[in-house]
Amino acid sequence: MSWDGVSDTLCPIARGLSVVGERWTLLIMRELSMGTRRFDDIQAQTGMSSHLLSLRLKQLEEDGVIERRAYSERPKRYEYFATQKGKELDPILLAIRAWGLKWGEYGPDAETAVKIVSKTTGEVIDKSLRILGKSDIFSFDDTETTLSNAYSNEREQRLDAFKQQKYGRR
Amino acid sequence: MSWDGVSDTLCPIARGLSVVGERWTLLIMRELSMGTRRFDDIQAQTGMSSHLLSLRLKQLEEDGVIERRAYSERPKRYEYFATQKGKELDPILLAIRAWGLKWGEYGPDAETAVKIVSKTTGEVIDKSLRILGKSDIFSFDDTETTLSNAYSNEREQRLDAFKQQKYGRR
Repeated sequence: MSWDGVSDTLCPIARGLSVVGERWTLLIMRELSMGTRRFDDIQAQTGMSSHLLSLRLKQLEEDGVIERRAYSERPKRYEYFATQKGKELDPILLAIRAWGLKWGEYGPDAETAVKIVSKTTGEVIDKSLRILGKSDIFSFDDTETTLSNAYSNEREQRLDAFKQQKYGRR
Repeated sequence: MSWDGVSDTLCPIARGLSVVGERWTLLIMRELSMGTRRFDDIQAQTGMSSHLLSLRLKQLEEDGVIERRAYSERPKRYEYFATQKGKELDPILLAIRAWGLKWGEYGPDAETAVKIVSKTTGEVIDKSLRILGKSDIFSFDDTETTLSNAYSNEREQRLDAFKQQKYGRR
């Protein structure tokens, strides 16, 4: 069975993975959940090649997980948004985050990269996943997020490095 | 950034994905969660090549996500088990399952491939993820699972096809 055959099963885990189990796909969805909208910014933060990013975005659009909206006509430019089907991947991202927080071997004093607080309950969402009990489907839309200084710096550096590589003099 | 660079970040989602974001990895973990223990059986149910499965198992062992235990000395043969770090991937599998159940385009009358019932509450675990609210970390160990006839048949057929290919006359 090739990877294409993975969706050919009754198992919903395998069918889910046939959409989101591709390398990079969930990193793209993380960026959309964080409000990143434009091709270059997604590329800068994920570190994907533009060829691969373009393939993955096309596939995700075909899968109904994202949609693009033109924000400029000349030249034609698009912003990318998660559809409802895409937004409902948030619990998967949250579960991966919780596992990464617990098992990711940060130092004991490491600050959380993104502090996530429920808008409805004010509860800080950490590795416990308890928040998933509050409603049927967790969504980052229902949370306020604050980047730590360190993670904010990391993202700025990624963007700078990307721009330097793409536009910079050498 | 190559995929190897994905773990080099403060973001716990990216660090989690650097372990479980490889194609097939979560399918292997699904099999271990279902109690599949032996190389051939994992291969039969995932459809991976033996070369790739062997690489992935080695990597997962290095990552501390699985462990192997010898069940035969001559020839040396191993069974594979999730470690605690590996078992705590269950919430990710569950979240993917929930998404797959909702968005996987089964017919409206399709029976769930695996019925999962909480041992503590008797609650059927479906796509709502509410069960995650009951304790800090969901584990399939705390559930009873029953395969639908259709999915049970699918798995038997996979095993038969695999054995036919490996040992069968042609």
